[in-house]
Amino acid sequence: MEYTFSSSMQHFKSSAVRDILKLTQGKSIISFAGGLPAEELFPVEAIRSAFDRVFTHDNSALQYGLTEGYTLLREALAERLSKRNIHVTKDEMLLTTGSQQAIDLMSRVYIDPGDVVLVQEPTYLAALQVFQSRGARIISVKGDELGMDLEDAERLILIHKPKLVYINPTFSNPTGYVWSLERRLGILQVCRQHHVLILEDDPYGELQYGGSEHFPSIFSLDQHPHGSAVVYTSTFSKTVAPALRTGWIVGDPQIITNMTRAKQAADLHSSTMDQMALYQLLCHFDLDKHVDTIRSEYERRMKKMATLLTGLNRSDIKWSEPKGGMFLWLELPEGLVAEELLKAAVQEGVAFVPGASFYAESPKLNTLRLNFTHSNEKQIELGMQYFAKALEQCEARL
Amino acid sequence: MEYTFSSSMQHFKSSAVRDILKLTQGKSIISFAGGLPAEELFPVEAIRSAFDRVFTHDNSALQYGLTEGYTLLREALAERLSKRNIHVTKDEMLLTTGSQQAIDLMSRVYIDPGDVVLVQEPTYLAALQVFQSRGARIISVKGDELGMDLEDAERLILIHKPKLVYINPTFSNPTGYVWSLERRLGILQVCRQHHVLILEDDPYGELQYGGSEHFPSIFSLDQHPHGSAVVYTSTFSKTVAPALRTGWIVGDPQIITNMTRAKQAADLHSSTMDQMALYQLLCHFDLDKHVDTIRSEYERRMKKMATLLTGLNRSDIKWSEPKGGMFLWLELPEGLVAEELLKAAVQEGVAFVPGASFYAESPKLNTLRLNFTHSNEKQIELGMQYFAKALEQCEARL
Repeated sequence: MEYTFSSSMQHFKSSAVRDILKLTQGKSIISFAGGLPAEELFPVEAIRSAFDRVFTHDNSALQYGLTEGYTLLREALAERLSKRNIHVTKDEMLLTTGSQQAIDLMSRVYIDPGDVVLVQEPTYLAALQVFQSRGARIISVKGDELGMDLEDAERLILIHKPKLVYINPTFSNPTGYVWSLERRLGILQVCRQHHVLILEDDPYGELQYGGSEHFPSIFSLDQHPHGSAVVYTSTFSKTVAPALRTGWIVGDPQIITNMTRAKQAADLHSSTMDQMALYQLLCHFDLDKHVDTIRSEYERRMKKMATLLTGLNRSDIKWSEPKGGMFLWLELPEGLVAEELLKAAVQEGVAFVPGASFYAESPKLNTLRLNFTHSNEKQIELGMQYFAKALEQCEARL
Repeated sequence: MEYTFSSSMQHFKSSAVRDILKLTQGKSIISFAGGLPAEELFPVEAIRSAFDRVFTHDNSALQYGLTEGYTLLREALAERLSKRNIHVTKDEMLLTTGSQQAIDLMSRVYIDPGDVVLVQEPTYLAALQVFQSRGARIISVKGDELGMDLEDAERLILIHKPKLVYINPTFSNPTGYVWSLERRLGILQVCRQHHVLILEDDPYGELQYGGSEHFPSIFSLDQHPHGSAVVYTSTFSKTVAPALRTGWIVGDPQIITNMTRAKQAADLHSSTMDQMALYQLLCHFDLDKHVDTIRSEYERRMKKMATLLTGLNRSDIKWSEPKGGMFLWLELPEGLVAEELLKAAVQEGVAFVPGASFYAESPKLNTLRLNFTHSNEKQIELGMQYFAKALEQCEARL
């Protein structure tokens, strides 16, 4: 029988990069490609105890649950968020299967085919895919390491009347950049003025390395819990563990109610077991201290990679030391194609993600993303040696 | 700030029924409304041990996992399905957040706005919502207790050229009906001939009460693992516990691959913890024996409710004893509106779902669904007394 798939499937094509990375399977390769946290830092014993505690409760724990998510976790999370100056009640929050689902549900309730979404490129690949699969037109705003160019944002808002601005302002994927306070306040003002909703995606906000600078979420800067111009999503994937698949989104009750209805059709609700375990974890485990541990180890790894990059003595490769997050962003000399470099790198024994995937409009072929959290210092050292060799080979061929 | 939601939100309106059922919250009310399994039968200790075993594995268990789902569970499930004559490899299977997500992802990869989906009404409410939110036109095929009218199905296929036929053929929600073998073979032949894909939704198939009749899945009747005219979805929600949110869908690799890509954008993957625990459960627990326990208890409850219905001595109320599943379907005398009856019933202390919700086209206002699995025999006895009183009151008012 022949199948006729929906037109949105065109946005889910397999990529050349995925095919190259498939070559790494089974090989002993050092991967700077994925956005993975360090496994050896997972608080396994604490998570085990948390699950154990779940079963001391009554059987109804195993029954169908609320689409909104486990009430006690929403309350505990609301309290936790208040320390970051995000003040919401449990009814202004929806628990999701990772923050990925929050982005997807937000698109479902807000985006119609043909609607415009503004982004600052490069940006999170899987968010672009979600918007595209809804039939949205993605328009890229000019910007730099400090965030969107506000004049360009306003110009494009006036021309295209977007429904949504998608921003990953704090230690962004893929660049590691962080928006300045001025830009945060600026985009909020522009969006509020023109009635454009901001989707603030913040999976890495807690992973700040050194420095006493404070980067408040855009949501927290918008002192309108009701009628907020911002919806804010984050996750436990980077602070506890990804396998628990628990993210959240907070915003105006109208938006949360609509997302809850959409979620009911999407999957009724996410895993109650994971949500109950996370609640037990928040009650009996010092998560802040744990995040400190992760932070110092990741900072060490980032410094290691940065030192090795500096050691390449290549002033024609542009990069900067990130203030947090999981990624380093490189711009190679013009003419060097990161996808070609990847082929050579995989032969040497190291992988990364070419930057082109993170653009919806005009990809910069000479960019790439390096992850430094999933490899230890020894692996980073070896991986960067391979990377340097691959770079030499690639340039010799030019 | 004013929000402009997407047009698909019109399909997620709050219903009058939901509002009535909200009145039951906090009240001591006997609910025949939800489609909930019996909590007291959950294999809590076995599930607890299963989770415990998960943690004897390495830390990578807590890392991001495959979108397709935990490999060992897919393999174990494939073996389990082979006993029901469903022969698939792990690559022809996707694990989902309940079978609800399977229906949703299937719609995403297969349905464009304006496409037609055939159903036999009444049918599963949340499936209708999914199709409607994709912008599908839902066309209802005539039918009876034995399944769709095959001539009407073929006629409508020729007129409307549907993309999909959605069927819940075994102990259906909401009717409890089960399709005959003849209709199963018939719809398969018609759909294969006209290149229409069948989505077979089978959450209740294992809950057969008495009788030696065998109701093979339509998928198993279609001896074309590749190029199959059927995709088949089911879940652990009814046999183990809903909180673990683990369903699956099997079908042609092309379809599964596309659904996997769509799932990557939807939520990356479902809870690995739940999937690993279910794998441990399948290895160390006699699930078949457990299903037998559930079956005999549910059968007892169903018989209890059926006896009480018979005791009403109302030949003008149409219903039949289901051969499996979780529901009894009632057709009241013409002129009696189930939604009005519900209001009276809630006052008396019992709830159910009026049947109108289960229709996309012309709702039958005098129908209703009773669940018998979530209440014990004592509650069923009391609930049916309340139900009878409410019926009297309602009729007195006519």
